[in-house]
Amino acid sequence: MSSTQHQFRLAARPVGLPKPSDWDYVEAPVGEPGDGELLVKVLYLSLDPAMRGWMNAGRSYIRPVEIGEVMRAVGVGRVVASRHPDFAVGDHVSGMFGVQEYCVSDGRGVTKADPALAPLPVYLGTLGGTGLTAYFGLIDIGRPEAGQTVVVSGAAGAVGSVVGQIAKILGCRVVGIAGGERKCRMLVEEFGFDAAIDYRDQDVKKALREHAPDGVDVYFDNVGGDVLDAVLTRLARGARVVICGAISQYNSVEPAKGPANYMSLLVNRASMTGMVVFDYVDRYGEAIEQLAKWLADGRLTSKEDIVDGGVSAFPDTLLKLFRGENTGKLVLKVADE
Amino acid sequence: MSSTQHQFRLAARPVGLPKPSDWDYVEAPVGEPGDGELLVKVLYLSLDPAMRGWMNAGRSYIRPVEIGEVMRAVGVGRVVASRHPDFAVGDHVSGMFGVQEYCVSDGRGVTKADPALAPLPVYLGTLGGTGLTAYFGLIDIGRPEAGQTVVVSGAAGAVGSVVGQIAKILGCRVVGIAGGERKCRMLVEEFGFDAAIDYRDQDVKKALREHAPDGVDVYFDNVGGDVLDAVLTRLARGARVVICGAISQYNSVEPAKGPANYMSLLVNRASMTGMVVFDYVDRYGEAIEQLAKWLADGRLTSKEDIVDGGVSAFPDTLLKLFRGENTGKLVLKVADE
Repeated sequence: MSSTQHQFRLAARPVGLPKPSDWDYVEAPVGEPGDGELLVKVLYLSLDPAMRGWMNAGRSYIRPVEIGEVMRAVGVGRVVASRHPDFAVGDHVSGMFGVQEYCVSDGRGVTKADPALAPLPVYLGTLGGTGLTAYFGLIDIGRPEAGQTVVVSGAAGAVGSVVGQIAKILGCRVVGIAGGERKCRMLVEEFGFDAAIDYRDQDVKKALREHAPDGVDVYFDNVGGDVLDAVLTRLARGARVVICGAISQYNSVEPAKGPANYMSLLVNRASMTGMVVFDYVDRYGEAIEQLAKWLADGRLTSKEDIVDGGVSAFPDTLLKLFRGENTGKLVLKVADE
Repeated sequence: MSSTQHQFRLAARPVGLPKPSDWDYVEAPVGEPGDGELLVKVLYLSLDPAMRGWMNAGRSYIRPVEIGEVMRAVGVGRVVASRHPDFAVGDHVSGMFGVQEYCVSDGRGVTKADPALAPLPVYLGTLGGTGLTAYFGLIDIGRPEAGQTVVVSGAAGAVGSVVGQIAKILGCRVVGIAGGERKCRMLVEEFGFDAAIDYRDQDVKKALREHAPDGVDVYFDNVGGDVLDAVLTRLARGARVVICGAISQYNSVEPAKGPANYMSLLVNRASMTGMVVFDYVDRYGEAIEQLAKWLADGRLTSKEDIVDGGVSAFPDTLLKLFRGENTGKLVLKVADE
């Protein structure tokens, strides 16, 4: 094992899309675990829209990544040294390991991953933060009932594709909104959505009149912007809008665009509620168990989009996310076992 | 009694503020009650921001007033003829009587008002739709807890002044937002608010940092626009935003301005929920009883701004509302007993 590794550290706070000069790609010592610590070799990293927010200064649901700090990222890896009582060499684990090849961890927030149950990248997606976000956002905030209409944006993305599939399992009519014909076809053919709307090519309001004729009971929003505004015009009475993200706005250098049609909340006695998955940490177990069962039963399809580029490919892979090029969970493969 | 009366009928759908040419002021027969009907002499009319929305075409929580139709308005009056079993000549009643001097009604939605318990205009305000809106919006949607901070906009208006007072009764810290120093002084001195912010003269965000240092737990919004956007930046974790109205936007000819800071809902796991008082009709009794008790105990002050202008003053009086000239409930006196 090498005694040095590579890391991406935040060099500057990006304006708009992150540029190469916003990163420092550095060589650093691998580090040795102290008492109560473990050393993880990172195998896969999770690429998430939320990362863009972590790069900004200012108050949010989590502290910003500081300039000079290793970029925050969830990863899965293998324990290669351990002085922690709960983890042994060879264990597979997931946790907030950062954009680097090795991570010394004190074990907080680290959980074990069993590659016999599901491939490791699935622990970053359907059995990780992605699946948990979809599960709690849809079930706890969206509260869909069988027969109701659920609409999800960013539907071909990591969270959206799981939201739509869970809504189908719960007996809902599901309409996905995504960019491009290929993604839309995938939603219907692979994920079993009832309909898909291509926001690049179609008038979303008009398409919703056709695909959600009785209005939208639950809208799970990952994108914000014009799509959110369009869906607001089609809410059913008592609708629940789940605010999970706003990827269309994260790299905007213009002032953020608010949902001009928000008074539809009044007209329809509807609600719009924000969710952050970390709040459900006490119930992760329940959700993972259910998601794993649905996966095992074949009722839930987990799709990962794996870039085999090593840690050096991180900046480019992140941009893929904001260009909407991924389908399913975007994962960077950092190393072989 | 004259056999003719005066009415305002909608002549055109306004663009921006209603103009004189948007109204037809007409003479019409008083009408005679048929079997099961009653004839009401209108004494006072309620002026409400929501009226502006009723004048627009298109889907809302209530059908639009049609061109040529008598303008919709809630009023209180005296029964002057009755062929309805529940109402006798001399009864005081409130209901949707319209902008006219006499109304023939089938009794639906008509309730009795007792002038011995409260002056008749109070039945349009604190004991009418205004008080009910404040009561259910704050208690059911806002769900304030003692010790929490409640912020209300349009705080010197009909609904806002009642919201703030109920929040005080419930043990909250209450901050009102209103336009002008006179109104702000009134909020603190007459209505017992803890603090007031003059949005015309002060930076609302900055003032909230001072007056709501732990963040805003409940925001009751009557105004929308920039004030809503400013308050969103100061939400406490788990905050509830009650969307009751958006008077700043009702007469805008620009596209409506959405709350650009709505992602604060995510950061703070907060919700924004619309409410329409009509949904609570089954519980009006409970609320009226409680409001009347607070009024009788002197814990709630009802303030009416009564314009003694007769029905012909309706268009000008309505504009007073949109210029923010009223304090408390704006009422038009139509006739003496």
